[in-house]
Amino acid sequence: MKVCLVIGAGAGIGGSVGKKFAQNGYHAALCRRSDENGLQAMVSAIEADGGSASGHLLNAVNEDAIENVIADVEKNVGPIEVVLFNLGAQIGNRSLEDTELKTFTLGWQMATFALFRAAKVVIPLMVKRGGGTLLVTSATAAVRGNAGQHSHAAAMGGRRMLCQSLNAEYASKGVHVAHIIIDGAVDAPDTLGKMLGDELFQKLRETRGGDNDGLLLPEQIAETYYHLAQQHRSAWTHELDLRAYSDLAWWNHAP
Amino acid sequence: MKVCLVIGAGAGIGGSVGKKFAQNGYHAALCRRSDENGLQAMVSAIEADGGSASGHLLNAVNEDAIENVIADVEKNVGPIEVVLFNLGAQIGNRSLEDTELKTFTLGWQMATFALFRAAKVVIPLMVKRGGGTLLVTSATAAVRGNAGQHSHAAAMGGRRMLCQSLNAEYASKGVHVAHIIIDGAVDAPDTLGKMLGDELFQKLRETRGGDNDGLLLPEQIAETYYHLAQQHRSAWTHELDLRAYSDLAWWNHAP
Amino acid sequence: MKVCLVIGAGAGIGGSVGKKFAQNGYHAALCRRSDENGLQAMVSAIEADGGSASGHLLNAVNEDAIENVIADVEKNVGPIEVVLFNLGAQIGNRSLEDTELKTFTLGWQMATFALFRAAKVVIPLMVKRGGGTLLVTSATAAVRGNAGQHSHAAAMGGRRMLCQSLNAEYASKGVHVAHIIIDGAVDAPDTLGKMLGDELFQKLRETRGGDNDGLLLPEQIAETYYHLAQQHRSAWTHELDLRAYSDLAWWNHAP
Amino acid sequence: MKVCLVIGAGAGIGGSVGKKFAQNGYHAALCRRSDENGLQAMVSAIEADGGSASGHLLNAVNEDAIENVIADVEKNVGPIEVVLFNLGAQIGNRSLEDTELKTFTLGWQMATFALFRAAKVVIPLMVKRGGGTLLVTSATAAVRGNAGQHSHAAAMGGRRMLCQSLNAEYASKGVHVAHIIIDGAVDAPDTLGKMLGDELFQKLRETRGGDNDGLLLPEQIAETYYHLAQQHRSAWTHELDLRAYSDLAWWNHAP
Repeated sequence: MKVCLVIGAGAGIGGSVGKKFAQNGYHAALCRRSDENGLQAMVSAIEADGGSASGHLLNAVNEDAIENVIADVEKNVGPIEVVLFNLGAQIGNRSLEDTELKTFTLGWQMATFALFRAAKVVIPLMVKRGGGTLLVTSATAAVRGNAGQHSHAAAMGGRRMLCQSLNAEYASKGVHVAHIIIDGAVDAPDTLGKMLGDELFQKLRETRGGDNDGLLLPEQIAETYYHLAQQHRSAWTHELDLRAYSDLAWWNHAP
Repeated sequence: MKVCLVIGAGAGIGGSVGKKFAQNGYHAALCRRSDENGLQAMVSAIEADGGSASGHLLNAVNEDAIENVIADVEKNVGPIEVVLFNLGAQIGNRSLEDTELKTFTLGWQMATFALFRAAKVVIPLMVKRGGGTLLVTSATAAVRGNAGQHSHAAAMGGRRMLCQSLNAEYASKGVHVAHIIIDGAVDAPDTLGKMLGDELFQKLRETRGGDNDGLLLPEQIAETYYHLAQQHRSAWTHELDLRAYSDLAWWNHAP
Repeated sequence: MKVCLVIGAGAGIGGSVGKKFAQNGYHAALCRRSDENGLQAMVSAIEADGGSASGHLLNAVNEDAIENVIADVEKNVGPIEVVLFNLGAQIGNRSLEDTELKTFTLGWQMATFALFRAAKVVIPLMVKRGGGTLLVTSATAAVRGNAGQHSHAAAMGGRRMLCQSLNAEYASKGVHVAHIIIDGAVDAPDTLGKMLGDELFQKLRETRGGDNDGLLLPEQIAETYYHLAQQHRSAWTHELDLRAYSDLAWWNHAP
Repeated sequence: MKVCLVIGAGAGIGGSVGKKFAQNGYHAALCRRSDENGLQAMVSAIEADGGSASGHLLNAVNEDAIENVIADVEKNVGPIEVVLFNLGAQIGNRSLEDTELKTFTLGWQMATFALFRAAKVVIPLMVKRGGGTLLVTSATAAVRGNAGQHSHAAAMGGRRMLCQSLNAEYASKGVHVAHIIIDGAVDAPDTLGKMLGDELFQKLRETRGGDNDGLLLPEQIAETYYHLAQQHRSAWTHELDLRAYSDLAWWNHAP
């Protein structure tokens, strides 16, 4: 059974993409740092829907953790055909003085280094098997820095250039790398929700979410991720943006 | 019946996208400058496939021509839900000295002004109806100029900035504008074929086309165009690139 | 005597750059569309300062007008070493519906086509003489479209891609093309002043200009233009941005 | 005496910029990792030329090293008005499989993290004093990834986004951050020379250097760095590129 490995599988893009692939015959191997119950609930929901899934706790910052989970899935579940790299490094706006060295380092470890580590072990396997897909969730901060975004922008800017490097080296060997710029707020309790806190998140949902479609809906994002993974190799997309219709693009936007 | 209007419907992206939409229940209103037989053959092929289509000769440079064809389709066929603007302005590499004022002007008329004219009449109709989609085929030349590309790059650079302007003004009113960068050679007799001549085109097809998938296949491109038009408004793409897996991206060359 | 030709020499960037070059031993050949008195005053001011200058009325949209002024200056003044192409096409924010075909066309004629025409006649002369410099004033609209900027952005986007094409074809032949993104409001009566009207312009000057340095000062811009023209050919700049320290960059900016 | 601190002062851009500032009345505080003799020779050369300079050994990767050298210079030499951050992280082309985790980490430590650390200590000092300048040498890899450039591109992409973030937060407080894209080979024994080895470097110098000006000359680069630091705050440049006239821009390759 072909496997879709989701690194960063919360209730948001990661979980929705996992579900979408599972609905289309992939085994969804879902990795997240904590909340084993939440993870198990996602697996159960996919299975209840007739799909196949497994849950893996993964602290991507730990030595060998990414490497081990890939080896484990390859050995015990099946060959990884698609990886969704979905770890974020957004910490809200923080001034230079309030951004600790430790914070900056952690941002890079999550957003840049973890992707490099994952690519380094999984891409050679894909190449041996004739191909594969690496979907990378990215952010506005990958294309423009901003006040208070020192850590996030540096980490995401690194991510973007790494994706271009991987694409340049591996596209012709059958590995499709896609860098997906999520240019707006996602209706995701596990990321936006935690960053804003319950109250602000609910308020945002009321004013911009729901029928307004002013927040990016994870299940709609998942449609495009899935489409990217199905593109024929004669017409691959490397980079695209996604935002809600009611939102201004980052190049038209106030901070 | 919802209508997909294709401006620039040759045997390539335009024709393939028209066909794809027709297979999914749209009426394909196909416009091209000449070759009425070829146009009629495309219409017949769609109809033979159970779809609905019509053919319209359109010289986009002529005064009122675009405006009239849109009015005609709206009146006699149905409300235009999707426009594919697919006019090219590639004339091959031509040095500055060999690029006549007339040529430069024509490039702009086809690639930039014709899009403006189409947008100016069709977007207000879409807004009144609550929304619509404008898919714009574009080219590498929209993001980087190059030797011999004076006319093409100036025209396409204008096209890209116009698309961003249209998007900024109309996305929130329900009009989805997508700027699609075709970053490579398309296996299209009507454009690449005519530019290269029969012999060179066949040679290219033999070395890079066919099972090598080294040319962008129009029918595969059409899958992504169709996907864009189906994106939910909470997660729209404004810009993406498409190229064959074996091709280097425009920002890369051999290291 | 080496000549610096200024196409678009108002009381702003054009006039200040002309003056700067005149102070450094160039003849400043100043071209503008109207206001012969203003033009003559600029010439006189340069001459009073010990410099050399001439004034030329030029309606860049007219057939052969640019071509003739270049031929005239080459014949009667001297070989053109530097061209500052400084025609703008900003018309303020105008919705799609309020942007007439004529307006859109005029924007392109001024911002894109006029540059092409100038380049087409002057660059071959420069190549024959072993080199030259083409400084092109550009705008934020060259790198991002925005609501109400349909005409301006399309024209400036074309300008930018044309500059890249000229650079790609002619840098190695000794012609230095620089695309200068003026990313903010310039303290210039002839452009900003006319667009805003006297009252608003004075108010803007009071709140952001003067000692606040919140408006780009033309004489300070001229320093960088002059520096670009003096760069050694082993280290040329093709593109740079300029903005007031107190302004946000376009990628951080509200419309 | 106003101080220009050069982090990464080899025989190339760093040394030449230090010398240029020293010629214009700055004390040049030159920092490099090793080669104390070479460092002392640069200091002596500046002093023999009538300038003021000091040499500081600095291993930027070491904990507190950057922080300490800044504190030391501030205390014992004078207030730092200009910082040139000139550490590179180019390791030549190296495939993904040949890029060790350690290498990737080191690239980031040098190119991204060290800049963050320097900015974090020096910018608040500049703000207190009403302003300052941070000149950041960058590379093509900051704007496009490429095969074999995984480490370098990720590090430089992070650097660029960090520069934009610093600029967004501090320009209005008087700190001028400039991100300078060196888009080509520099005629620098300490960087290019060491990377290529003596023989290849001499060959490159013979074919492209010397009177051909096909290599970027550090002393010419220094002219533009110095100009940037002198720009009036009403007209600051945040980003520009530099390349030899005979080189194609990174976005171009042979058509």
